[in-house]
Amino acid sequence: MLRRPAHDSVRTGAMRTPQNQADLGFARVDLDREERQGLPEVVYGPGKHAGQICAIVRTLIERNNGPVLVTRVEGDIAGAVLTEVPGGRYEAAARLLVWRPAEVMDFRVIVATAGTSDGPVAEEAAGVGAAIGLDVTVINDVGVAGLHRLLAEADRLREADTVVVVAGMEGALASAVGGLVACPVIAVPTSTGYGAGLEGVTALLAMHASCAAGISVVNIDSGFGAAMAAFRLARILKKQR
Amino acid sequence: MLRRPAHDSVRTGAMRTPQNQADLGFARVDLDREERQGLPEVVYGPGKHAGQICAIVRTLIERNNGPVLVTRVEGDIAGAVLTEVPGGRYEAAARLLVWRPAEVMDFRVIVATAGTSDGPVAEEAAGVGAAIGLDVTVINDVGVAGLHRLLAEADRLREADTVVVVAGMEGALASAVGGLVACPVIAVPTSTGYGAGLEGVTALLAMHASCAAGISVVNIDSGFGAAMAAFRLARILKKQR
Amino acid sequence: MLRRPAHDSVRTGAMRTPQNQADLGFARVDLDREERQGLPEVVYGPGKHAGQICAIVRTLIERNNGPVLVTRVEGDIAGAVLTEVPGGRYEAAARLLVWRPAEVMDFRVIVATAGTSDGPVAEEAAGVGAAIGLDVTVINDVGVAGLHRLLAEADRLREADTVVVVAGMEGALASAVGGLVACPVIAVPTSTGYGAGLEGVTALLAMHASCAAGISVVNIDSGFGAAMAAFRLARILKKQR
Amino acid sequence: MLRRPAHDSVRTGAMRTPQNQADLGFARVDLDREERQGLPEVVYGPGKHAGQICAIVRTLIERNNGPVLVTRVEGDIAGAVLTEVPGGRYEAAARLLVWRPAEVMDFRVIVATAGTSDGPVAEEAAGVGAAIGLDVTVINDVGVAGLHRLLAEADRLREADTVVVVAGMEGALASAVGGLVACPVIAVPTSTGYGAGLEGVTALLAMHASCAAGISVVNIDSGFGAAMAAFRLARILKKQR
Amino acid sequence: MLRRPAHDSVRTGAMRTPQNQADLGFARVDLDREERQGLPEVVYGPGKHAGQICAIVRTLIERNNGPVLVTRVEGDIAGAVLTEVPGGRYEAAARLLVWRPAEVMDFRVIVATAGTSDGPVAEEAAGVGAAIGLDVTVINDVGVAGLHRLLAEADRLREADTVVVVAGMEGALASAVGGLVACPVIAVPTSTGYGAGLEGVTALLAMHASCAAGISVVNIDSGFGAAMAAFRLARILKKQR
Amino acid sequence: MLRRPAHDSVRTGAMRTPQNQADLGFARVDLDREERQGLPEVVYGPGKHAGQICAIVRTLIERNNGPVLVTRVEGDIAGAVLTEVPGGRYEAAARLLVWRPAEVMDFRVIVATAGTSDGPVAEEAAGVGAAIGLDVTVINDVGVAGLHRLLAEADRLREADTVVVVAGMEGALASAVGGLVACPVIAVPTSTGYGAGLEGVTALLAMHASCAAGISVVNIDSGFGAAMAAFRLARILKKQR
Amino acid sequence: MLRRPAHDSVRTGAMRTPQNQADLGFARVDLDREERQGLPEVVYGPGKHAGQICAIVRTLIERNNGPVLVTRVEGDIAGAVLTEVPGGRYEAAARLLVWRPAEVMDFRVIVATAGTSDGPVAEEAAGVGAAIGLDVTVINDVGVAGLHRLLAEADRLREADTVVVVAGMEGALASAVGGLVACPVIAVPTSTGYGAGLEGVTALLAMHASCAAGISVVNIDSGFGAAMAAFRLARILKKQR
Amino acid sequence: MLRRPAHDSVRTGAMRTPQNQADLGFARVDLDREERQGLPEVVYGPGKHAGQICAIVRTLIERNNGPVLVTRVEGDIAGAVLTEVPGGRYEAAARLLVWRPAEVMDFRVIVATAGTSDGPVAEEAAGVGAAIGLDVTVINDVGVAGLHRLLAEADRLREADTVVVVAGMEGALASAVGGLVACPVIAVPTSTGYGAGLEGVTALLAMHASCAAGISVVNIDSGFGAAMAAFRLARILKKQR
Repeated sequence: MLRRPAHDSVRTGAMRTPQNQADLGFARVDLDREERQGLPEVVYGPGKHAGQICAIVRTLIERNNGPVLVTRVEGDIAGAVLTEVPGGRYEAAARLLVWRPAEVMDFRVIVATAGTSDGPVAEEAAGVGAAIGLDVTVINDVGVAGLHRLLAEADRLREADTVVVVAGMEGALASAVGGLVACPVIAVPTSTGYGAGLEGVTALLAMHASCAAGISVVNIDSGFGAAMAAFRLARILKKQR
Repeated sequence: MLRRPAHDSVRTGAMRTPQNQADLGFARVDLDREERQGLPEVVYGPGKHAGQICAIVRTLIERNNGPVLVTRVEGDIAGAVLTEVPGGRYEAAARLLVWRPAEVMDFRVIVATAGTSDGPVAEEAAGVGAAIGLDVTVINDVGVAGLHRLLAEADRLREADTVVVVAGMEGALASAVGGLVACPVIAVPTSTGYGAGLEGVTALLAMHASCAAGISVVNIDSGFGAAMAAFRLARILKKQR
Repeated sequence: MLRRPAHDSVRTGAMRTPQNQADLGFARVDLDREERQGLPEVVYGPGKHAGQICAIVRTLIERNNGPVLVTRVEGDIAGAVLTEVPGGRYEAAARLLVWRPAEVMDFRVIVATAGTSDGPVAEEAAGVGAAIGLDVTVINDVGVAGLHRLLAEADRLREADTVVVVAGMEGALASAVGGLVACPVIAVPTSTGYGAGLEGVTALLAMHASCAAGISVVNIDSGFGAAMAAFRLARILKKQR
Repeated sequence: MLRRPAHDSVRTGAMRTPQNQADLGFARVDLDREERQGLPEVVYGPGKHAGQICAIVRTLIERNNGPVLVTRVEGDIAGAVLTEVPGGRYEAAARLLVWRPAEVMDFRVIVATAGTSDGPVAEEAAGVGAAIGLDVTVINDVGVAGLHRLLAEADRLREADTVVVVAGMEGALASAVGGLVACPVIAVPTSTGYGAGLEGVTALLAMHASCAAGISVVNIDSGFGAAMAAFRLARILKKQR
Repeated sequence: MLRRPAHDSVRTGAMRTPQNQADLGFARVDLDREERQGLPEVVYGPGKHAGQICAIVRTLIERNNGPVLVTRVEGDIAGAVLTEVPGGRYEAAARLLVWRPAEVMDFRVIVATAGTSDGPVAEEAAGVGAAIGLDVTVINDVGVAGLHRLLAEADRLREADTVVVVAGMEGALASAVGGLVACPVIAVPTSTGYGAGLEGVTALLAMHASCAAGISVVNIDSGFGAAMAAFRLARILKKQR
Repeated sequence: MLRRPAHDSVRTGAMRTPQNQADLGFARVDLDREERQGLPEVVYGPGKHAGQICAIVRTLIERNNGPVLVTRVEGDIAGAVLTEVPGGRYEAAARLLVWRPAEVMDFRVIVATAGTSDGPVAEEAAGVGAAIGLDVTVINDVGVAGLHRLLAEADRLREADTVVVVAGMEGALASAVGGLVACPVIAVPTSTGYGAGLEGVTALLAMHASCAAGISVVNIDSGFGAAMAAFRLARILKKQR
Repeated sequence: MLRRPAHDSVRTGAMRTPQNQADLGFARVDLDREERQGLPEVVYGPGKHAGQICAIVRTLIERNNGPVLVTRVEGDIAGAVLTEVPGGRYEAAARLLVWRPAEVMDFRVIVATAGTSDGPVAEEAAGVGAAIGLDVTVINDVGVAGLHRLLAEADRLREADTVVVVAGMEGALASAVGGLVACPVIAVPTSTGYGAGLEGVTALLAMHASCAAGISVVNIDSGFGAAMAAFRLARILKKQR
Repeated sequence: MLRRPAHDSVRTGAMRTPQNQADLGFARVDLDREERQGLPEVVYGPGKHAGQICAIVRTLIERNNGPVLVTRVEGDIAGAVLTEVPGGRYEAAARLLVWRPAEVMDFRVIVATAGTSDGPVAEEAAGVGAAIGLDVTVINDVGVAGLHRLLAEADRLREADTVVVVAGMEGALASAVGGLVACPVIAVPTSTGYGAGLEGVTALLAMHASCAAGISVVNIDSGFGAAMAAFRLARILKKQR
């Protein structure tokens, strides 16, 4: 016997009130994370068809106030969703759908990539970051095999509130940037390269073993994770002021 | 033929002046990192004997102004060093030597551990953090296998500017804390446990694969790395105000 | 020279009688496992074409009395099989074919998932479990990044005879549930997520390294394995009463 | 600044009352897990000195009612503890300290080992199991390289309520037992053997990939984990009756 | 500058005469391995198009006397090759092309599989073995999860000169057979199964860690390797008589 | 807010002048690497569409003097590029596009392969090498399983200035060649083979663990890397003369 | 409750008679393996103290007829055992104890090592092999980095009935020998070397990925396993004659 | 039966004459590698006792003309050897014994380390290199976390004929140096660091995945390997002039 209880029937706990989540059948949409945590709502696109994305996005737009994002959406699905749920925007390079982008805060994030193949991950970091209110600048192609390119950007990097380093292969850019700047450095290993790069695992491990102190690392290819980590920083600044 | 050039003979580059490093023969002490990066000087103890530690510490104390730390020092070496270089303090639980600790900043860091065996790493994070000016509170033993213990601390965790989560085994505490607080969460995987824990690698991977958005991770057992990552955050706050 | 002995020619051992297996040429169907072990017959679908599945299922239906299942069957093959071997039912979400489902026993199993992407594995666990007589309830989307969702279900979880936890990424839900309930917890790591999740290996290792005592784990994505493990539990209860 | 708050000061949450934990400074002893979960209290010995063990054990004995266990204790520490906290018993083969062993329940567990080198892990499983009330029988040395030894025990294995299989090297015994019995099978990989055994990782993976349906697995060398998993089973039986 | 020397121009070494290899441009066909080593010529199909296979096979047929085999050939390529180089035979299940199969020797090889999904690898072992003169019998589906099936074949297994065990998942069949027979046992791990089976690596490691003495192992899925290893055994028998 | 600064606006650093790089929007073309390092410009093809390749190649041809290469280009893209940027040549076996190949230097490189399946990687090494001025000879199919083939080439190998060994599977050829010649040996592991070859990782590790002294290794399948390593050698010779 | 049944009480199965095993309490000595399988009795020494070894050896000597061996015994334990159980011999290099060595059979085994550090494993192979009746010759130090050393032994290798190749690091000797001889080749990877050798795992994988056909492999450092595999070969020869 | 043939008895092959090796019983000393390959003789110390080292060194000194080295020798053994075989020198930092060091060639090698903990490996590279005739300069502590230190040495690095980069942790220095110089770069990963450094495996993989073209890599901690690779380069230069 297989039961699928209506979620409503279990709303008895002290920590859970009827209005704080929406039961769409296929998903339990968390409606007060925005209020509870102050973090924006970001939907992970892969594995969801256009209809499901529309339902989730509509619920979030209706019941919440902040920005609504869907990541890793291919163009055809994005088109279908935007037709159904107007008011949004698709950023193809970032594979990102955005409704109600946040107002820009005074928190400067630089997303720096080692090479052109790290571009798509950097675009996700930049796109998500801009949509949730960060003041993002992208600097491409400053990998350590051409140190002069990195050093030429040193002053600009030093003015950032946070640097997101996006690098695959051996991930060395994270160490070099970590030694140049004093602000937080969030390293994103990417799955670019081949062979000994082990689809990003080598860069992830290398960034952790970095000789530069106080670098922190997020998951392979997770531009989204880096943007959210930067947002957490921006938020304490805002809170303190 | 084996040459060991005096470092002085090569001080010709534009970026390098005689006063910015000290050549101790066995080490090239970076004297202006403090000024250049604003990061404190922390010496990694293992593999250095008491005499070498003394020489480095003396140089840093004489030529710099900030705190001077040596990590992962066993008690006997610490004793020998303190006799030679007075004015310091040894924190046995953190295996840390400190001279000229920094004044405390208004930046509250909570170091939360999953279990008692994560203690030594948490002590390193807390000891280094306090010595470089963070306002650190330690909360022990709030692993997810006893959620009530974690939830009882939820309010306090929410008041922090940053939470450092120290957890071995499966590292699940990082995800749980990431969902409770909106501030930055720095996860430190530890090498506690046995078997499938793979000496911390499992916790490191699990923390990266975490379902909570915006968590960042430092190297296995690196309480030092977590403290430095938190310091980078504190520094931008200070800069902005 | 390549010989393919008729299996009949070797039926001489004391432990093996002609009626306890059927030689279909491509498979040796074990006809008395049901009686010998009391476990239901479940056919693994991948790699078998519709004709082979039909032959095996027909043999099991004719010679056995219990439920007959085929797992991981795509819709088109399922359709072809059901046309040939009537009386069955296809559950698309679980990718499961069932004939003669068992009567429901008084053994309550809750299948809890961390996120929506764990759904297909949970459906397999639930579908197989229900077909072999377990009283299954599915609770979706209670991952530890939103503890309030999990805690809201705590009472219901505590009423179960067994909880099957289906979680990918870092698999932390298994530890949290293990700390909430006293009944058996069977953890199923899933291959959801990307990067450091290593296609389920990280969750598998993390669940083993769990800080909650007495959790046991089955293979990655094996909803089937979890259902069978739960069935073994249900059967001893039945035996004892 | 480093603060170590008295735990009492944070006792404000709804789920946490002053009496449900004891703050020993170095550990937060969970005093109502016994009541909350019905699981016995088991202290993990390694990394704790005799004084710490004494303090924890005393607290548990005073405030709880059930059995109190400490695992993986070497003989000299055990002696020191028993002198301080009388009424206990040391089981050297299991490296286990026990106070107030539970009354035996009607739940028969067989602990079967593949070879003599798996003995210490089996002893831990058996010792912990007996101390928490299971009716444990140990059967040694029935690895699959000598199937007649295993088959000679088949009838006895079939009478068990649960079989704990302890096996290192290739871990094949778990599959063989899984095919012989219908009751729950809990597999414990051990770190015995050398080379390709990879200190138990091979056995762990092999047990998960087992061709026998419904086997579940605990961590490498975790005799304790297997006993606790069996206890969870025993407890639902008891509850139902 | 890129030179591609005619191989003829370098035939100057004492160990190499013009007639012992044929330069086909894309391959250097070893024409006297048959005489030098007494091993048959087996061409690895993947990555070679029909034209290349034809050229190599023709050369081997013209200049050598023994059997000529091509492994892992899909049906369409096989058809094209047989049209061009008549006299051969395609064995679809083994994906094998054979010309001039060897006379059968008095050397009985049993190829035993754990499950039906190990079939293709077993077919390669059996097909190659039969083509090079071994007296091969296939026994399917005798995995250790149903020991009675294996034991029913024990007498037949004991009459073999060599047993090739083909098993994926946990590979336990190799240990069980190793304990039943005294003749050489060649274990072939297969990449069947999913999750913790790690595409055959788990079975490979498990077979090496086997508790049965004197088993040897070949590469994952290498039915060909097992047949050749058996051939080496057969050849010393023949030599000695 | 997402800013994409014109690269020109940041040309302020001492090490960076406007003329030393070209901003194509999607890439920052390094125009003085040729002068700065003396290394030729090689563009990595995968992930770039024909239009992007054309733009980069045109820029390099206009502003630099040396050879311009694009690696790992499929035939259809190559055709499209050559139509747009005339004067180049496509080498299909090497998947290489070349404009302005360098004059041949007096530096003899032998590229030796273990087997025919290592061919494509060897072709990349040879093609790139020849295009940048090395005097390359290819010797195929001299793997250690047929030592006479290798020994027949020993004299020729000893005349080389550098030997590039291209080998997959177990990579043993590198050790054997390392013991035959005194010149530099650059080993390229390839991802050929299956199972235990782990897609080239086994060969990479084996080449590093080689018993022959002074062998060095490049990335898996990196014929390009080997050619560049050889070029670095050739360049010092040239410099010294 | 913890029961330890006398093994005698379960001697009821058809396949098990009282005389075929001896219950020493700590071990179940298999007394008819010699008769059942024709394989000699070899006791694995590590983890057993002198008293246990004495008891097992005495039982085997009394009740069986063939050779009795104990492997991996350090000198002091060996001395103690020989005092208690006279008539045996200790071979220090092989760390082997032997009683009643077998008569030598007409089966020539060559144990060839790549380097001197593979010596101890080769000694185990040779010592065990000689003790169980093989006609063993050891050839040291013929690694592929000095092919002339190997080739100088080629004729002798070709006269063997079986070659055991003992090699660590990259394990290339197995491939080279596999290409020189037609008889069975049993490869033993050793844990010698450092770094990329991964304590023998690299050699194990490399030997499996070998380009020489029909090589089989045993566990890392298992000289014993190689000797037993060779014995299995010798035994079929003997049977056939 | 175990035979240990005098090596002399097999000196019959065409490629092997009595004078080209010396049989010391425990080792087969290769006496003409110097002439055959032009590579110096370097003995690997670990696992050999003082007596064995003395015998090998004496033989090499008597029968050869070039330098004789023993690597990784601890001080006490070194002392004992030097007493027996006078004329040598012990370099403690490099753990190296040297007799008859070679005359210095005109080939400048710079050994650059990332940090002080890479020192011992760099000392081995430098010590071996100087002893075999390279003109070696050591530059310490130029890791990428302090780019100004590296850039200050850029001119000196550009004057080298070869740069050996010794770096553990994430190994990023290899990429940075690879982008600064045009000469050959030999990267030596070291096992320094902890956690995610995986004892040098991370650095090894990262160096292979490097974004700088034409870098080659030797085994973890193999200062010796790097020196020998550099020697091979020096030798072709010498040959060409």
